[in-house]
Parts: sequence; structure tokens; C-alpha cells
Amino acid sequence: MKKIINAPSQIVEEMLAGLATSYSDVIHQVEGTRVLAKNDDHPQVGLVSGGGSGHEPAHAGFVGDGMLSAAVLGDVFTSPTPDQILSGIQAAEQGKGVLLIVKNYTGDILNFEMAKDMADMEDIQTEIVVVDDDIAVENSTYTAGKRGVAGTVLVHKILGDAARSGKSLAELKELGEALVVTIKTIGVALKAATVPEVGKPGFDLADDEVEYGVGIHGEPGYRREKLQPSKALAKELLDKLLADYPQPPKQIGVLINGMGGTPLMELFVFANDVNALLKERNITVTFHKVGNYMTSIDMQGLSLTVIDFTETDHTTALHAPVTTIAW
Amino acid sequence: MKKIINAPSQIVEEMLAGLATSYSDVIHQVEGTRVLAKNDDHPQVGLVSGGGSGHEPAHAGFVGDGMLSAAVLGDVFTSPTPDQILSGIQAAEQGKGVLLIVKNYTGDILNFEMAKDMADMEDIQTEIVVVDDDIAVENSTYTAGKRGVAGTVLVHKILGDAARSGKSLAELKELGEALVVTIKTIGVALKAATVPEVGKPGFDLADDEVEYGVGIHGEPGYRREKLQPSKALAKELLDKLLADYPQPPKQIGVLINGMGGTPLMELFVFANDVNALLKERNITVTFHKVGNYMTSIDMQGLSLTVIDFTETDHTTALHAPVTTIAW
Repeated sequence: MKKIINAPSQIVEEMLAGLATSYSDVIHQVEGTRVLAKNDDHPQVGLVSGGGSGHEPAHAGFVGDGMLSAAVLGDVFTSPTPDQILSGIQAAEQGKGVLLIVKNYTGDILNFEMAKDMADMEDIQTEIVVVDDDIAVENSTYTAGKRGVAGTVLVHKILGDAARSGKSLAELKELGEALVVTIKTIGVALKAATVPEVGKPGFDLADDEVEYGVGIHGEPGYRREKLQPSKALAKELLDKLLADYPQPPKQIGVLINGMGGTPLMELFVFANDVNALLKERNITVTFHKVGNYMTSIDMQGLSLTVIDFTETDHTTALHAPVTTIAW
Repeated sequence: MKKIINAPSQIVEEMLAGLATSYSDVIHQVEGTRVLAKNDDHPQVGLVSGGGSGHEPAHAGFVGDGMLSAAVLGDVFTSPTPDQILSGIQAAEQGKGVLLIVKNYTGDILNFEMAKDMADMEDIQTEIVVVDDDIAVENSTYTAGKRGVAGTVLVHKILGDAARSGKSLAELKELGEALVVTIKTIGVALKAATVPEVGKPGFDLADDEVEYGVGIHGEPGYRREKLQPSKALAKELLDKLLADYPQPPKQIGVLINGMGGTPLMELFVFANDVNALLKERNITVTFHKVGNYMTSIDMQGLSLTVIDFTETDHTTALHAPVTTIAW
């Protein structure tokens, strides 16, 4: 394992300090916690997300005016503890309640729900929105139901914009639940991530092999085959996503997300193939985003996310300016 | 070689189309060229940069209001041709002249100078600013003098802000030349990049070895040794940079740049170590940026850039909002 680190056990603390000291104009570490909270205190419903580390820039990179109020960092690929999440809720609370945006993993659900109960006891109103956008498989390792992956970042952005505009906790919860069903993601891996404490890749793929549907913690996907050209990968992933909607979407947003070890060059070649396919199919795309947003440490691969705007167009919210590190 | 591409020979065209179709709200491809130009036509001196592809998001990711007017894309690790650069100049010209920001490589200098001559014949006034921020070695492969690397992005940003504010071509040339000497960069590589047309890594490093001072095309550095902890890497690179200034800087900006295959987790651990060292030395840091800005395809490694604000403080220009894809 070749990594620029000091000790594997210190990575999260050091990364957190690196984030806080590099971007002190936007965020700060809540003393004695693993919470990064935004500096501005515009009065609004708080938005808190978080989860295991290793998905950088998620979630700390999305803390700032117009997106998250605070992010809670767990150990690598491990849910943050309920007391850490509670610290995030306390940091985000401004008397209007706090919405928790949680990726659907058993550990995260359990700990965020416990934190919600603890917040209730402190008379902080909270609600939870669970994101389960990964359509690759049901009931994966660590997960009952579908996994929550890169589409979560779109939920941060759209709810962040709505919270900034003054929506109530109940309105945000309703918006969040309507939103989640319109967002679908699927990934492909060329090479597994190496968790620093483990020291070797989480799974093996042959030199000419890819795996479709791999999760952001290296959970198994749905098929392995020989590496195909980008055009074929784009068709495989896009067809799967579009077929999963009850009605074929007419207007969409697209997020192409690198897994951490894939250069932008490849993401843009793939984006070109996706855009060509969507044009062929007469699907209008009013929002595009291409880059590293929800990674899996140094995994090589990418995910494709579609958000259906046919019912409700969230383009303006997605384009609204924010002050985060990574949006 | 495992890459999400179609054919190696098509990468630049496809990547360019992927950029243009994904971010048509910000940039457009100048028809029949390898130029990506910004959509807004705020009247100002044009700023054009470019170079070989493989350094994404540089340079196309920095085209937009407040940074570059246009970027010219060469083949992977190959200078764009003079006629392509001329197309970039023509796209950027609004009657006030065009400044060319060029990284110091023999091929780039030659071709940008030829394009300048061609522009003269069309009565477009141009000036060139050469960036040579890499202090690792003198007279490297492809280079007479020092190489131009990640610090170029800071030049784009500061000159972009000045151009937007109405500075003349002569003023921008003067500002650019004063700026270049204040910016110093040095890199470290853990694993070489794989150029798609070549199909294998550009050089070999043992499993436990790093090379200091590697260039962004895999040019040799100044020392190989066993991989050190992040703290030791930070000290090696920072000491080298600070010692290269005639007077020790009191106030600086810092850019920590991933080489394309290094996860953000590692960049932030390294940032923490750099920030701690700077604090120890009582050097004030008023600008930080951590991420992938000037990559070397999928190279694992990073570079550290320091910009000295002791004489002239460019913090405000660096923080000014822009509409680019990647700043």
C-alpha cells in the first residue's frame, strides 16, 4: 500500500484538521468532535449529513451556505457514532429544527435514528431523509434495501437551497422524500479501493475485467465482464437507470462521479458518450456535473446518476451559487 | 492498461466534446478547432492558455468569467499547434489584445510564439507570460530552464481577476511577470502516469519508493527514497520551496494539487501537515486550495505550491468568485 499518510489510525483526525485549517473561511471543526460545521449562521432549518470517511469530498466538502449546515465524519467506511451525530445536530440547530440526510446503510440508519432520539430529549426537532439511489442490487453487504451513493450529493444541494430559502422542517422532509425517488445511480469499478487500515484492495478484478454495480465500499455488483469501450459502459449504465423509472423521463439532470482513482480525462470521455446517447433518445438534460463527489478512496471507476425533472424541475436549485469547498 | 475510453487516438476530441456538452452554460467549442472558449463576452483583454492534454481540469476547467477566455487543447502531453493557438487568440480577442499564459516547455514556447507572430499579422496585439514555477530541476526533459506546473493555475486566477477588472494588456503582462517569480512549486510521485497511446506507466518506482521533483509529464526528479510519512514529505517539499525565496516569505498562499490518481483523503492529511509546519514557522497563510487542478493523467502523487504575498497580497483576487468548471 502506497499512500501519503502518517498512521492509518490517525487519518480521519488529520484529514478533518486539514479540511478545517485549509478552509477556515467556510467551515470550522466543532471543538472536541468529528463535526465540521459552516461558519455562516443564516437562520434556517439545519441540514446534517455524514457517514463513514473515505468518500471525500463527501460530506464535508458540501458544508457551506446553500448546502449542508454540518457534516459528521465516521471512521473509514464506518458510520459515525450517535453522540457524534448529536454534536452535528446541536451545531446545526437554530431553533427551526434539523433535517438529517442519511445514506441507506444499516449502521448509518441505526446511529442517525439513535441521534434523533437523543435530540428529541434535548427538544431539538429532527427529521430523517434516507437516500437509496443505487439501483444495482437490493440487500447488499451492510444494507437492507438499496444503497445510498452519489445521488446523495444532489439531495444535499436541492434541500440546501430550499432550506436557505426558508422552507420549514416539515416542508423539507416532504421535498426530500419526493426527491429521493427521482434519483437513480449505478456504478462500475475497474479496480477496488484500498482501505488504509487493511492495506490491500478490497476485492480482485482481473487486468481486463470490470464489475458493474459495485458499491462505494466495494460491495459486490451484478456482473463482471471484460472491460468494454466507454460507449458500451455508458449504454449499459444508462439503459439500466432509465429502465428503472416507471415512466421514461423527458427532462433530467446528470451527475457523473469519479470513484477517486479515475482521472477526469476518462470522466469527460464517458460524459461525451452519455450525452450522445441522451441526445439520440430525445431526453433533455438541463443539469450536468462531472467530477469526484462521492468517492471510494482510490477506487478506479465511476458512477452515473440521473435525476428525473419531468414532474418537478430542480435545475435552478442545482445551479444556485454556494460557498462549499467541493460543489 | 485499464481506462474508460474508446480509442486512445480519439481521447482528446471526445473529452473536449464531453466538456463542451456537459458545461454548455459556461463554455463552447469553437467550431472545427480544439479551443474551448467562455460564453460570456464581457469586454476585456483576452486570456488564453493551453498545452498538452492529460492535465485535466487544466486548462479547460479554468475557462469562464474571471479566469481564462479560452483554452487550447493539444494531444496528450503534446503542445497544441500554432494554428490551434491562433484560433484561441481569435476567440479571445475583443479589440483589447490577448495575453497568452504559457507553461515553460520548449514545444509550448515555440508554438505559442509562432501563434503570436500569426496574430501580429492579423493585427491582434498579444503578449506572452511564461510560467516556470517548478523549482525541482533546471533543464529537464522537454524544457530549457524550469518547468511550468500547478502554479500556472494561480496565474490564471490572479490575471483573470485583473483582466475582468479592466486592466490593459501592458498592465497584465507586467503583473504576470511580477507574479511568476513569487510562485514556486515542487512535486512528489508515488506511481507514474499511463499515457493511453503508450499503454504502460511512464517510469517505474518500487513498491516502497517515492520520487521527489517529478514533472507533470513524468520528467525525472531530484531524489528517490523509501516512502516517508506525510509529515516528512511535507517538510521536504516545504523546506525546499521556502529556501528558494531570496527572503523568507511572511505571508503566503498555498496550493496542494493532486496528480490525478491520489484521493482527496491523502491531500487533506498532507494539508494538515503543511499547515502545522507553517504555523510553527509563523508564516501567515491567507489563501488555501486543496484538490486536483494540474494533474498528470492518473499519476499518484501531489505537488505543493507557495505564492509569496509579502510584497503584493493577491488574496482577494484568488478568492473572487468565478464561473469556471473547476476552480
